[in-house]
Parts: sequence; structure tokens; C-alpha cells
Amino acid sequence: MKEKTICMVGFGNVAKAFARLIQRKENELKDKYDVAFRVTAIATGRHGRALDPQGIDLTRALELSAAGKKLDELSKTSSPDSIEDFIVQSRADFLLENSPVNYENGEPALTHIRCALEHDMHAVSANKGPVVHAYHELKKLAGQHQRKYLFESAVMDGAPVFSVFREALPAANLVAFEGILNSCTNLLIELMEQGKSFDEAVAYAQSIGIAETDPSGDIDGWDAAIKVAAIVTVLMDTPYKPQQVERQGIRGITQAEIRQAQKDGSRWKLVCRGEKIGGRIVSKVAPEMVTPQSPLYSVSGTSSFVLFKTDVLPGLGLLESNPSPDTTAYGLLADVLNILKTE
Amino acid sequence: MKEKTICMVGFGNVAKAFARLIQRKENELKDKYDVAFRVTAIATGRHGRALDPQGIDLTRALELSAAGKKLDELSKTSSPDSIEDFIVQSRADFLLENSPVNYENGEPALTHIRCALEHDMHAVSANKGPVVHAYHELKKLAGQHQRKYLFESAVMDGAPVFSVFREALPAANLVAFEGILNSCTNLLIELMEQGKSFDEAVAYAQSIGIAETDPSGDIDGWDAAIKVAAIVTVLMDTPYKPQQVERQGIRGITQAEIRQAQKDGSRWKLVCRGEKIGGRIVSKVAPEMVTPQSPLYSVSGTSSFVLFKTDVLPGLGLLESNPSPDTTAYGLLADVLNILKTE
Repeated sequence: MKEKTICMVGFGNVAKAFARLIQRKENELKDKYDVAFRVTAIATGRHGRALDPQGIDLTRALELSAAGKKLDELSKTSSPDSIEDFIVQSRADFLLENSPVNYENGEPALTHIRCALEHDMHAVSANKGPVVHAYHELKKLAGQHQRKYLFESAVMDGAPVFSVFREALPAANLVAFEGILNSCTNLLIELMEQGKSFDEAVAYAQSIGIAETDPSGDIDGWDAAIKVAAIVTVLMDTPYKPQQVERQGIRGITQAEIRQAQKDGSRWKLVCRGEKIGGRIVSKVAPEMVTPQSPLYSVSGTSSFVLFKTDVLPGLGLLESNPSPDTTAYGLLADVLNILKTE
Repeated sequence: MKEKTICMVGFGNVAKAFARLIQRKENELKDKYDVAFRVTAIATGRHGRALDPQGIDLTRALELSAAGKKLDELSKTSSPDSIEDFIVQSRADFLLENSPVNYENGEPALTHIRCALEHDMHAVSANKGPVVHAYHELKKLAGQHQRKYLFESAVMDGAPVFSVFREALPAANLVAFEGILNSCTNLLIELMEQGKSFDEAVAYAQSIGIAETDPSGDIDGWDAAIKVAAIVTVLMDTPYKPQQVERQGIRGITQAEIRQAQKDGSRWKLVCRGEKIGGRIVSKVAPEMVTPQSPLYSVSGTSSFVLFKTDVLPGLGLLESNPSPDTTAYGLLADVLNILKTE
């Protein structure tokens, strides 16, 4: 049986869900994939660090985190000051990068991933920032070190947006796509359909942890634009920045417009579009009214959907319903296992 | 560069679309997959056979077929009488099995596939029959010969129903599914929504080649049931026959019911369901009324959709819109290329 070690940077909801997932699947992974995982390093932003080459007790780490305590007591060796040195010292097979998204430049996740690849570690991350800011660089770097950089959970959580093309659809070329890629705005519009004002909807979404304290990244369409840029960058193999996406958020939609759409049997949705025309990319994020005849109409709550148009399949849709940190964590595990099958 | 040879049994619309597809993608397959395909054998039901170890001229084969002529003039060697001997004599790397579906016992496709695997050929087929009648046997036989048997196009044409689990979603276990898997009945109900009587709808669907001369396989839910059985058999790893599916077709839906549903903002759909409860499978094909809130509502015309519930992703939907023989042909090519990457 293979033993593989993991260094986790970030220990938030998704990382904790990943820890629980590999615990729950321990026997299945041994039986079907002939692999056992050992988390040998965990670095957090505010709750300390743990480093143990023999493997950190994940149950204990989850308990400490739940109690708001620091992880340092789980360390068997002293941790270096810098996070890069910490990653290097972990000597793990995989870096699992879970630090917060940064739309501007992808940092600090980008530096962590670069560091891991340079030191012959695979890198897996749900972070969209490094994808849009450095995908082609990181892919090349990974190749130079015979390692992989995967990021399935960066778009639509654990739904196989990237892997379906990479693993299952050989010789399929993406021509265009449309979809609902931002959960938060989709929920906000639905709350407004239920009669809440925009501010009430935002406050409610914040109270259940869907909207951030500063919700402008979602509301103004930045999160959707970064996902459009990620799909263009990776699946159309064309470096593309969120700033290049024609972008309009949902602030302009009034309750009157939402009510009128409902009367007409339609719904407002924040729709993402991208298309390769000749060698040129045309892309857009903007509110659109959709009718029940559209597959976008029934995408409700925090669900998401993308319809791909390829040169071989004219319409292939992927729907992800009921996402949670658990589904994002599964996307990370799928990346890890998909990397292992190439070794 | 690898050269791979293909023996085609059946040269109907899908097989011809496959021939055009590998012609169109010839350069891409060489550049990206380092492979060139040569069709060395074609056997048809009523239009003769061609056997040429150097490779049959596909353009000429397509022309002959379009003109309703026999393919025999393309043969460089004499063909044996039996189809099994023909397959063996082709000595091809791949059998592409495209003979008509047989719900009862999967023949003659099953015999062809068995013959190919026994003679160390990979087998790829869009045929549902062998999947539900012999999947586990054929998988075992393929393994004994270090070959593969794949059948992506058996359900939802080229949409990656099987490969998404096999290639992209490691350690994901299917718990339940629901969907619209029969294109013909979906179109028939839509035609009735547009005001046609049941008989008029059937006649129209027959005129455009969607319904067969005897349309009972579709109308009575057999085609849907065989697809349910295929998903259960393969993705739940449980041998399952179409006869085990609780089955109700669309003959019972009246125009009055369809009009009433439309008034209520709903639509009738022939819905497929399967679920693993404990060790037991519960499955059903039956008409259901669905509202615009359901992802099934917008599945129109000959499109199809399946929503998977797994132990790691609570809802993953796959939509295939605008299918054609070209999309089924792509499913066959995807199988061939996915097999090649394991070699």
C-alpha cells in the first residue's frame, strides 16, 4: 500500500471537511485505491501550526479547532517562521492550499503553490486566484518537476468542471459556455423573489455564512467574473483575467423588476457567458431574465450550473445542487486521487 | 506515432458519423494523442463487407453507403462467411460494435463483443443490450485478456454518464438517480403539448426518424428501463435487468391531462428513478408531472438529463442537449481514446 503525506495550509471549513472526509473514507481508500493518507503539517492563519512527520491526529486537530484553540500542541518538531519554510520542511507529497481568495493577484496562495511545486510536491487548491493569475506558469512549473497542480473545486465546488474535460472527454474542444457560477447572488435574488429587500437579503445571506462581511465581491460580479476567467484560461487554454470580463453585478435589479419577472413567469439570474470567436474571447457577466424553458431557470438557492458547447457535443450541462464545504472538500480529494493515478 | 486498427460491425448512421469524425479529427488525434486510426474491416447487415488490412478508404465507403451500394468492392481479401470469423480475421485493435439493439438478450452484439475480447481486441459499443445482459461477464472477460469493454454512448449518447464516474470522480459512490433518459417519449409529449394527438405525434416522430416503425420500445418505457438497468448495473455495480424496473409508459397520458398540466404551469415527463436502499435496488420508469422548479422541466425535445446523488456530491446533474448521431459517435471515440490512455 502507498502512504502519501499531506501538508495543509489553511484549516477553515473546507480543510476541516477534507480532514473528516479522508477519515470517513479511510477504509475505502485503502481497499479501492491502495493508499493511506497522513496529514503531517497544518498551518493556519490565526490558530497556530502543527508539524508531525508521523502524522497529526486529525480528530484532535478538529477538536482543538472547534474549541477555538491553537494547533501548536500537536507539533512534534519546531515550526520555522516563514510559511514557505514550513511547506518545505513538511516534505509532504501534496500541498493542500486553502488560504482565502485574493482576486487582485492570487496571493498568498500563489506563492505557496509555487513553493510546493518547486520542491517537488503536488499542489491541490480550491483557490481561484492562482488559476486566473498564473495557471500557465504553474502548469509549466509543475511539468518541470514532474508534479501536478489541480484545482477542481475552484469553480462549482466538487462538480467535475475541469476534470470532465481533462479525464473523460478527450478531443473535445470548448467553444462556448453559459451558466450560473456565483451561489451568493443566486440566493440573494431568490430571497428578493420571496419578498425581502436587497439589504434584508444580504443581511440574511451574511447570517447563514453565504455572503461575506463585505459582499461586494459577489454582488458586483467579481466572483462570477473570476470563474469565467478560470474556465476561459483552463478549458479554452487562453490566459484571461477577470478584468477582461464585461461585468455587471446585481445591484441594479429592483424589487419591482423581480416582481414583474415573476408575473411574467420568468426569473432574474446573474448569467455568465464566454465564447471563443475566431481566436478572440468574448465574455460577460450580467443579470438576465430567463424563462422556464431555460435550464438556468430551475437553478435555485446556492446551486450552480454550466452549459458547455463543444465541437463534438453541442450541449453538455453540469448541475451542482446542494453544495457545502463537504462538496468542495470532495473536489480536493478527487484532485489528489486523480493525481495519484498518473504516478 | 501509434497506429491503431478498427473493425466496424454495423455501418448505420452512428458508425458513419464515427467514420466522418475520425476523418475530421485526423490531425488533432495525431498532434494531441499521437495516434492514427485505420479502419481495416466493415461488416454491414445488408450492404456487404469490406476487409483491407491496409485500411479501407472511408470517403469511398461513405459514398457507396450513401448511394445504397454494397461495400464489397473495397475488399482486398476475401471475407469469411461468419461474422465472428470476420471479426477475428480483421485482427484489429478495436471492435466498434454498432448492430441494432435487442432488449431481450443483447444479441447479436453480445456475441460480437465476446468474440472480440476473446481474441484480444478492445470492444467499444453504443449498444445497451450487452450492458444489461452481460456487463459483469464482459468486464471479467476483458480483464482476463488485458483489454477493455466500454459503452459510453449506451446512455445519453456522448454525454459522459459512465466515464465521469470512472475517470473523473474517484471514490464517489452512486446512491440514487433520477432523469429523463428516453428522447423519443420526451419529444412525443412535447408534440402533444403543441396540440398533436398521440397518433399524430408518433407519426411525426417516425417521419423525422426519432420513433421506430414499431415505437412500442420507447412508448412503453422499455428503452428507459434498459437505461435505468444499465446505470444500476454499471454505476451501482449490481447486475440488474430491465424487467426488474417498475415500468409504465406514456400511452396512458391523455391530451386533457397534458392541457391541464400546462394550465397549472407543469409538464408531463417520463421520469426514470433508481435508488440503492440498504443492499436493495428500487427503480421505476413512469410519467410524472414536474414543475418549473425541477431541472427536468426544461429538458425539451430529444434532450436528456440525469441527476446523480452520491455519497460525496448530493446532486450532480448531467444535461445533454441537441443530440444526434454525431454525439453518439463522439461517445465511441471518447471510449477508444480513454482506452488508449490505459495502454
